[in-house]
Amino acid sequence: MHERSALREGILFTDQYQFTMAQVYFRLGIHERPALFDHYFRRYPHYDSHQAGYCIAAGLEGLLDWMDAARFDAQALEVLRGQRTRRGAQLFGDDFLAWLRDQGSFASLTLRAIPEGRVVHPHVPLTVAEGPLAMAQLLETALLNRINFQTLVATKASRIRDVAGEATIMEFGLRRAQGLGGNEATRAALIGGADFSSNVGISAELGLPSRGTHAHSLVQVVMALGQSELAAFRAYAEVYPDDALLLVDTINTLESGVPNAIKVFEELRVKGHEPLGIRLDSGDLAYLSMRAARMLDAAGFPNTAIVLSNDLDELVIWQILAQISQESRREGTDADAVIRRLVFGVGTHLVTSWGEPALGGVYKLVAVADQGHWRPAIKISETPEKTPTPGRKQALRLYDQRGKATADLLLLEGEDPLSQESILLHHPADARFRTLRRDEISAEQLHEVAFAEGQRQAPAMLAAMRARRDADVARLDPGVTRLVNPHIYHVSLSDQLWNMKQQLIRDAYQQRP
Amino acid sequence: MHERSALREGILFTDQYQFTMAQVYFRLGIHERPALFDHYFRRYPHYDSHQAGYCIAAGLEGLLDWMDAARFDAQALEVLRGQRTRRGAQLFGDDFLAWLRDQGSFASLTLRAIPEGRVVHPHVPLTVAEGPLAMAQLLETALLNRINFQTLVATKASRIRDVAGEATIMEFGLRRAQGLGGNEATRAALIGGADFSSNVGISAELGLPSRGTHAHSLVQVVMALGQSELAAFRAYAEVYPDDALLLVDTINTLESGVPNAIKVFEELRVKGHEPLGIRLDSGDLAYLSMRAARMLDAAGFPNTAIVLSNDLDELVIWQILAQISQESRREGTDADAVIRRLVFGVGTHLVTSWGEPALGGVYKLVAVADQGHWRPAIKISETPEKTPTPGRKQALRLYDQRGKATADLLLLEGEDPLSQESILLHHPADARFRTLRRDEISAEQLHEVAFAEGQRQAPAMLAAMRARRDADVARLDPGVTRLVNPHIYHVSLSDQLWNMKQQLIRDAYQQRP
Repeated sequence: MHERSALREGILFTDQYQFTMAQVYFRLGIHERPALFDHYFRRYPHYDSHQAGYCIAAGLEGLLDWMDAARFDAQALEVLRGQRTRRGAQLFGDDFLAWLRDQGSFASLTLRAIPEGRVVHPHVPLTVAEGPLAMAQLLETALLNRINFQTLVATKASRIRDVAGEATIMEFGLRRAQGLGGNEATRAALIGGADFSSNVGISAELGLPSRGTHAHSLVQVVMALGQSELAAFRAYAEVYPDDALLLVDTINTLESGVPNAIKVFEELRVKGHEPLGIRLDSGDLAYLSMRAARMLDAAGFPNTAIVLSNDLDELVIWQILAQISQESRREGTDADAVIRRLVFGVGTHLVTSWGEPALGGVYKLVAVADQGHWRPAIKISETPEKTPTPGRKQALRLYDQRGKATADLLLLEGEDPLSQESILLHHPADARFRTLRRDEISAEQLHEVAFAEGQRQAPAMLAAMRARRDADVARLDPGVTRLVNPHIYHVSLSDQLWNMKQQLIRDAYQQRP
Repeated sequence: MHERSALREGILFTDQYQFTMAQVYFRLGIHERPALFDHYFRRYPHYDSHQAGYCIAAGLEGLLDWMDAARFDAQALEVLRGQRTRRGAQLFGDDFLAWLRDQGSFASLTLRAIPEGRVVHPHVPLTVAEGPLAMAQLLETALLNRINFQTLVATKASRIRDVAGEATIMEFGLRRAQGLGGNEATRAALIGGADFSSNVGISAELGLPSRGTHAHSLVQVVMALGQSELAAFRAYAEVYPDDALLLVDTINTLESGVPNAIKVFEELRVKGHEPLGIRLDSGDLAYLSMRAARMLDAAGFPNTAIVLSNDLDELVIWQILAQISQESRREGTDADAVIRRLVFGVGTHLVTSWGEPALGGVYKLVAVADQGHWRPAIKISETPEKTPTPGRKQALRLYDQRGKATADLLLLEGEDPLSQESILLHHPADARFRTLRRDEISAEQLHEVAFAEGQRQAPAMLAAMRARRDADVARLDPGVTRLVNPHIYHVSLSDQLWNMKQQLIRDAYQQRP
């Protein structure tokens, strides 16, 4: 198993064409030519009825781990040496394989990145890879795989965080997650907004306790052996007197589960323990929350949690909260008090980013070194938004006087727009622009060096990534964090970059046949 | 990295509540009581505008690998020992942890399963786990994680296979896949219907060559260095004279890409090589296929492949084929000849099962041993379809005289419905039924033993799994394989099983408070 996983998760965790292209570069003698690739996404996830107005960067850590460990070892080279052309000849030459063996390390690359947990927007590179063309090319698949997916899930988690307010969010999705990718989903969820996860291994790795309740099977087992739901609850509470969180919907939530839970809670209290709460996993969760809250209140347990689960996502949570706010008076409960005790267990919809299960991040060549200079590279698309912004760039985030992020600005290396009195911000794809006065804004560089000279940056603490997320979301205009139809955040090009891009597009059109 | 991956991928690759429940079973003294859990899904994937009428089982192999390797080693036990109650006490007792260390192996379980590659339907257990209650409980999360996901992706691949006919299907999705889960997605795609994958490592593991073309970056690099698309094509063809497959849409497909590809193909032929083909990755793929085919035909390359890619799924492929069939005469090409040369590169939509990114497979307790007998377990749901079918069961597939599968039949252990002249087939959730005459059908047991007495079955060859898929799909009624609104395949209960289930439901209702 270990040998196999080394094969499938190591340097061969990539697309075939990365190797075929790398060999062409090798034959052309340009494989060690410095090259620059930008990784960015073009639009926010769009979950049918709702849309993200920002994303949360995640996944860098796993990529750095991989870059650090991936090697052209004997096993990987053997696979490549065994590949054949259509005529049965060796596909990859021995000289190229020897180069991979001797020089094929990601230690030659520099990776700049927007740190994990930060808010990110379309067209602004999340990562920029710089180094020998062949190795920068070979990085593509693993980079996209790791960062696209975790950014997608962290974004979904952040939306759930936005709507859940102060409530605890527990990620429960491993059983519906994508094989081993489930670990990455959990990690991204914890960066983006989930407080805890049920996933034991990765939680331990991140230094977080894993959380859970119990399943229907516990009640079923006890009942199949001739006893009752109450007996099952008692057995659970006896083992976990200080952590009794009981799933109350195995038989009937309001007629059996909640009354039995209350009985057990009373017994616990007699013995000096405070119960944790109940979990509702089916039915009308808003209605049942209010009813269960009233029953728990009446029994003297107003502080017990009510954990909700069952295909929750940000929109369903929003609806539950709205319904409780509107109907609690009629139900004879206090909406704020009910909402304060809610905990959300989110699984499938979070870890799969239901509605938009992939982030379309791309990795595009933006410059190649030629005689000591960076030659910007362009690829024209019929859709202007799809034409990459060429060149070696900086990315700034501009904040207004309220401290709110007002735009992300891409500019050329060496440009200092803040030396001018006013800054021209071009729309990335069309001719629109706006200007900002220098003294009205502050600016921040978004990229940090994550990997250079064979050294990767130290892993970030989960708490630090979460703090970045919270700080960045707080600095967004509320319209941008709106669940449905959010306000479009501005991503702009500097005047110099805009002009350079337009010139390259014109040149490319002139070169067309 | 290796230590970490052992933690996150080993025995702790599970939900916290599996451990808390297992400890309750331990305290009740029923942790070694034989128990039976069925794993099944309740409905086919529903991709918004289209729906599956069958699924393809996949993912068992990875589960067996995991069961074989997962251990309560010192590191895992240390994590569990470190968990705390709300009051700061040790959550898991040393006696329970010692039991896990000494007895906590999946070697005590027996797993029966429908082999990978086979057609499967709702409510028919894909796997049945039998063994000590605590270990059967602890298996749940990993089992659901592996088999739900791969079955989901194999199903999507099979639909693409159904619509693509004889055309080659290449899986290209790693960059948009779910981290390391991407390997499982590739594997499932290859079982379900993809011929090849771009994913190098897992393809090698499965004994399959990985396939690919080249990316836009190759053309861009060469152009950024002052040369042309033609120069890039020439460079590629020089390195791969027998495998030249050129991506023709970097500049303009019909005005630049195809003419340049033809130039290079002519040069190859002069040197005694036959080109492989072109790839189209943007624009109206149906229209461009016909145009490119005409140009290639006119140049004397009627046998070159045309690879299509760009967010393809089964519906898009269907539309492309329909459009070519309808419009080829007007375009001056032969539809069959164009279609015969098409190759489909599918990525994002396949590996994420876009539209329905999770299979809702569940793992339900169906029986517990009590004094040497199996006591069937039931869990009533307000939705009749959600009430599991209790008891230790067999699963048969019934074929009619044409050799077509007419129903899957669940029955109790020991039942032999084929000894009767007619077989009564009950709808699983309501009172409808139908009868079949014994002499009109043949029957097949669906489950095989996959893991028993600490031994796992030998890994299946990819070719064998694919052969199962092909044979099973061929035995489906065409209405069942329809892309949109498929005919509903019958899954039925035997008379005896139906009566037992109804009795248990009645009993459970009578026991309600």
